[in-house]
Amino acid sequence: MMKVNAGRGKRAGDNDAGEVKRARQAPERPLVTPAVVLVHPQLGENIGFAARAMANFGLSDLRLVAPRDGWPNDKAIAAAAGAVAVVDRATVYDTIEAAIGDLNYVLATTARPREMVKLVLSPETAAAALRERASAAERTGVMFGAERSGLDNDAIALADAILTAPVSPGFASLSLPQAVLLFSYEWLKCQSPKALGRITTFDGPALEGTPTPDTWPATRAELFGLFEHLEGELDRSGFLRPPEKRPSMVRSIRNMFHRMGVTEQDVRTWRGIITALTRRPPSRG
Amino acid sequence: MMKVNAGRGKRAGDNDAGEVKRARQAPERPLVTPAVVLVHPQLGENIGFAARAMANFGLSDLRLVAPRDGWPNDKAIAAAAGAVAVVDRATVYDTIEAAIGDLNYVLATTARPREMVKLVLSPETAAAALRERASAAERTGVMFGAERSGLDNDAIALADAILTAPVSPGFASLSLPQAVLLFSYEWLKCQSPKALGRITTFDGPALEGTPTPDTWPATRAELFGLFEHLEGELDRSGFLRPPEKRPSMVRSIRNMFHRMGVTEQDVRTWRGIITALTRRPPSRG
Repeated sequence: MMKVNAGRGKRAGDNDAGEVKRARQAPERPLVTPAVVLVHPQLGENIGFAARAMANFGLSDLRLVAPRDGWPNDKAIAAAAGAVAVVDRATVYDTIEAAIGDLNYVLATTARPREMVKLVLSPETAAAALRERASAAERTGVMFGAERSGLDNDAIALADAILTAPVSPGFASLSLPQAVLLFSYEWLKCQSPKALGRITTFDGPALEGTPTPDTWPATRAELFGLFEHLEGELDRSGFLRPPEKRPSMVRSIRNMFHRMGVTEQDVRTWRGIITALTRRPPSRG
Repeated sequence: MMKVNAGRGKRAGDNDAGEVKRARQAPERPLVTPAVVLVHPQLGENIGFAARAMANFGLSDLRLVAPRDGWPNDKAIAAAAGAVAVVDRATVYDTIEAAIGDLNYVLATTARPREMVKLVLSPETAAAALRERASAAERTGVMFGAERSGLDNDAIALADAILTAPVSPGFASLSLPQAVLLFSYEWLKCQSPKALGRITTFDGPALEGTPTPDTWPATRAELFGLFEHLEGELDRSGFLRPPEKRPSMVRSIRNMFHRMGVTEQDVRTWRGIITALTRRPPSRG
């Protein structure tokens, strides 16, 4: 069963609607830069190198999911060189779900798209997509897997889309700090207004005009709550059997929702649908 | 006085004009990729990391000018990971002039343009410029300075133009392997669609190879069957009420499926989900 944490951020659409509305309508407000989420990183040096790359290109929100060698880590501090501030402000989580709970839009970095049907973005397109969403006050992030293993399919299934760098077929393995560097570099590159002009074709919910609950992307926590609800009912009904097939069935269902680009209102609609379908009609049952 | 060595390569425009002309007129010929010239590199690890970045993005001509710790270097081999071939084939020179003697067009990488009046290119523009020249059978290269000191003014004065990566003013210092990586990445990015194969599709959904039921879009008829199934069950459960709201609720649900980009397999999965949710478990009903 998935554990759902609300995450540390304020959830858009929660109780303080006035403040959220102001935030969404103030384009002059500094962008909330994407979070860089390192999932089970192994070497402190690589965390430090990643922090350095982030600082080089204006990123600061480093999140670590269960770093192998614990935290804080002296080797990370040494490798970060002058970027110690990013390391010092890094936050640590037990689970991916907790680390990305407050985010609205999340990418998963992987060398090779797996069998999942998911949008695949280059670092350049990914940076543009995140920039567009950040401009609309969405919270965004990019997940990077462990050095050897990368992100597993369950982690990838939590993301909206896949980030893959074009590499030479002859030597396709990018190191963790290299991958963080390329994304961070493209993030800074796409900041200039000139570069922004051509970002027009991103696939996702329309973000024009004043956002409403109909168009405001659900947070990860809201989405995880929906998954938990649906999968719990499907477990009870016997749909997710045999047990050895359950993981791939769950991933496939989650990926359909990610492709949909689920809004806050969608989450409410789906939870209503699930409740309705699992309830026998009072009169004719 | 500058010492000029001819270097190891044939210089275009030299004595064998006929051969050079043929080469320029044969676009199918593989490009001569740019040389990466590390001037007085200090740490073997950084040479290895640079070699790895080169291999990741299809570069192979590594040239070292008077590496501090001699050559070959075990730390370089270790850091190169799978890119040992680039390290093995690296060539070593006593002077910059010897290292770049056979090149037609050379860039100097520096964090901050000095007082020289020289064209300054971003990694992206530099890659495009080198690509254009390589297509015309010119030999090209990019120089990178030592870790701490960078390239001195005399080295920069040997180059045709300056290569500078955009960085955050707050933390502008790029490491040597980072700088090599960014140039190599942009080099691969600017290759022709033909050379890159499937990498050109990264800006859109990955739909490579033979379509399977997992990726093949559902027909409208399959989708309508799914709508009918779901809406019928929702009508029975009383979810689509009051009646005057039913049309907009149905549209909203259908639009979620359209945004998802439903495949044939998705239709089967959803119909299974609906059937499972509307069926009471045999034991606990």
